[in-house]
Amino acid sequence: MSVRYGLLTLLRDHGPQSRAQLTGRLQVPRPRLLAELDRLVASGTVVEAGPNASRGRRRSPLVELNPDLRLAAIDLDARSVGVEVTDGRLQAVAAHTEHCDIRTGPVTVLGRVTQILDKIRAEGHFTRLDAIGIGLPGPVSFREGIPVSPPIMPGWDRHPVRDVLSDEHGCPVAVDNDVNVMTLGEQHSGVARTVDNLIFVKIGSGIGCGVQIEGRIYRGAAGCAGDIGHIQVDADGPVCSCGNVGCLEALFSHEALARHAESAADGDRSPVLAERLAARGSLTARDVADGAAAGDAVCIGLVRTGGRRVGQVLAGLVSFMNPSMIVIGGDLADLGHILLAELRSVVYQRSLPLATGDLPIVLSELGGRAGVVGAAVLASELAYGDTV
Amino acid sequence: MSVRYGLLTLLRDHGPQSRAQLTGRLQVPRPRLLAELDRLVASGTVVEAGPNASRGRRRSPLVELNPDLRLAAIDLDARSVGVEVTDGRLQAVAAHTEHCDIRTGPVTVLGRVTQILDKIRAEGHFTRLDAIGIGLPGPVSFREGIPVSPPIMPGWDRHPVRDVLSDEHGCPVAVDNDVNVMTLGEQHSGVARTVDNLIFVKIGSGIGCGVQIEGRIYRGAAGCAGDIGHIQVDADGPVCSCGNVGCLEALFSHEALARHAESAADGDRSPVLAERLAARGSLTARDVADGAAAGDAVCIGLVRTGGRRVGQVLAGLVSFMNPSMIVIGGDLADLGHILLAELRSVVYQRSLPLATGDLPIVLSELGGRAGVVGAAVLASELAYGDTV
Repeated sequence: MSVRYGLLTLLRDHGPQSRAQLTGRLQVPRPRLLAELDRLVASGTVVEAGPNASRGRRRSPLVELNPDLRLAAIDLDARSVGVEVTDGRLQAVAAHTEHCDIRTGPVTVLGRVTQILDKIRAEGHFTRLDAIGIGLPGPVSFREGIPVSPPIMPGWDRHPVRDVLSDEHGCPVAVDNDVNVMTLGEQHSGVARTVDNLIFVKIGSGIGCGVQIEGRIYRGAAGCAGDIGHIQVDADGPVCSCGNVGCLEALFSHEALARHAESAADGDRSPVLAERLAARGSLTARDVADGAAAGDAVCIGLVRTGGRRVGQVLAGLVSFMNPSMIVIGGDLADLGHILLAELRSVVYQRSLPLATGDLPIVLSELGGRAGVVGAAVLASELAYGDTV
Repeated sequence: MSVRYGLLTLLRDHGPQSRAQLTGRLQVPRPRLLAELDRLVASGTVVEAGPNASRGRRRSPLVELNPDLRLAAIDLDARSVGVEVTDGRLQAVAAHTEHCDIRTGPVTVLGRVTQILDKIRAEGHFTRLDAIGIGLPGPVSFREGIPVSPPIMPGWDRHPVRDVLSDEHGCPVAVDNDVNVMTLGEQHSGVARTVDNLIFVKIGSGIGCGVQIEGRIYRGAAGCAGDIGHIQVDADGPVCSCGNVGCLEALFSHEALARHAESAADGDRSPVLAERLAARGSLTARDVADGAAAGDAVCIGLVRTGGRRVGQVLAGLVSFMNPSMIVIGGDLADLGHILLAELRSVVYQRSLPLATGDLPIVLSELGGRAGVVGAAVLASELAYGDTV
């Protein structure tokens, strides 16, 4: 970690501080720290912020991040785009979310992102951006800043997302997959703030996880660590879109849940689902969540079965990785405590006692905001000069 | 990484070097490096080694590790103890291996280790030790230097192995489980020398793995990362010693293989096994290995089934961790290429193409020496001043 990065992230996370406070918090010789701080003040990244009122008689001057620093956080998913512009401390100064179909392709979608940012600029919220962080719903080569064979993003394969946005907005851009970005958000501002070794599981249209090891996102040799949706959970299960049999995603995801719900409604086993199916002609995972919340036995059964499948995979990963915490996020986390109870019972029963003795398994605290918060963290890591 | 550790490990791995060569290899300002080197020379850890003959007209003096540095490497397994004393560059100056039953308890076994070391000292191979590294065949709290509820080591639970050896021999001691130690050996001196993200699988009396992430052993929140022997591979499988059903170890390990072999011999399906069973009254994993090597179809079938089970677990771990290499070690690695072929075919078929595109799955190069080599590396990391 560079001294620059250490100083800027301290000012990001703890606000205005005196030089003495910074020296106390960073394990760096004082002269090196002060020299770096002088450089940051000279470049305008850090500014003097007046005396420290709270510390005794001799008031020491404070420094803080330049209040004009601006980061853009972009959270793309299959059906929406969320954009936030924040100051250097990740506080939003402007935000905009709208429907957006990722399948319309990169030119349309990134064009729309640029329009939104231009509008926020025109409203006077910034004159220039210091960095952009963007999360995409598919595999990403982090090093190259491009999506790689993303299954639900036709037309996006190897599109130069980083370079396009960087050229358009004149600032550095970091591109990552949505699950890594959500993990970063949850670890910085959510339930996993004090945790070093974290598995963040996103359950939604697909299933994936973010892995944080010793406080840093772990990406693996080819950048595809965390792709757990295609781990086999049932050798006699259905054929998955990947061509293999019995993958976790083939058994529990938006699509799988909707399919199971429709078959249950047809069979007349669930009046709640049958009524909705009659009214609309098709069902979604949302209907199952609503049914489960209303106490419908079939819906509760579907959620439980799904929780068991996810738990089965996580039990193995817990024995392997011995994480400090597991966070469950994504749309289907709305299935909530029924899902969590089932998943916990499998993990606590199947994994090593030593690995589960002190292992919280909890729902995401940031919920739908994990992506945009994480994208802002990603942008700040880039702006403040560390490799993520 | 400290400058001291950087300098000493460079001298460990590359031998005598000039100050200019060291400066070129370490990313540290020259004055800091030279100051640290002066301290190391003053303390006698590093010595001047005469001029560098190979570099031009002006010969620059070389420095090297003090040739009197001594490390002890101890590799305990269920039935044997291996001890090596090495110099600072991990070259053995004395070695001794003997039968030793771990079940005789820590006082007897560690007493014997001390006798062996005393004998090596009496032979004039060292006067004092700089550090000891020891691997134990069970779970270890690395931080505390003690075994924790080790299943095959009665009487060893929480025995202060580190403190006992440290008091006895007057040097620092690092205690780790055997799989982590073998991983360290394979990464330092074996097939995984150039690899950062490694899974080392030990298949023997049990099944476990060592995980190396970005060049360092990853231990997990409670120190039990890598315990993959109890991941479920068959929901309808046999009950395991851990109380769960269908664990990997219950289906493929020394004991499981011996059991399957005896049942095949009884059923008269394998003449090779039947003959051995008649001659000795029981069978071992070794008999299956010999039978497979001799082309016996039943033995080959048993090895293949085992390889498939291990492959099934590894396929999931590959999707999750996306490692750069998998190394197979331990006694049952002697089952060799039949095992490897089956295991590879499952991983390459079941894991993500992006994760397996460039993933070597290979047998250990150090074989039975991985443990003692790794214990020497562990001792050197302690002596050279980094936390492992």
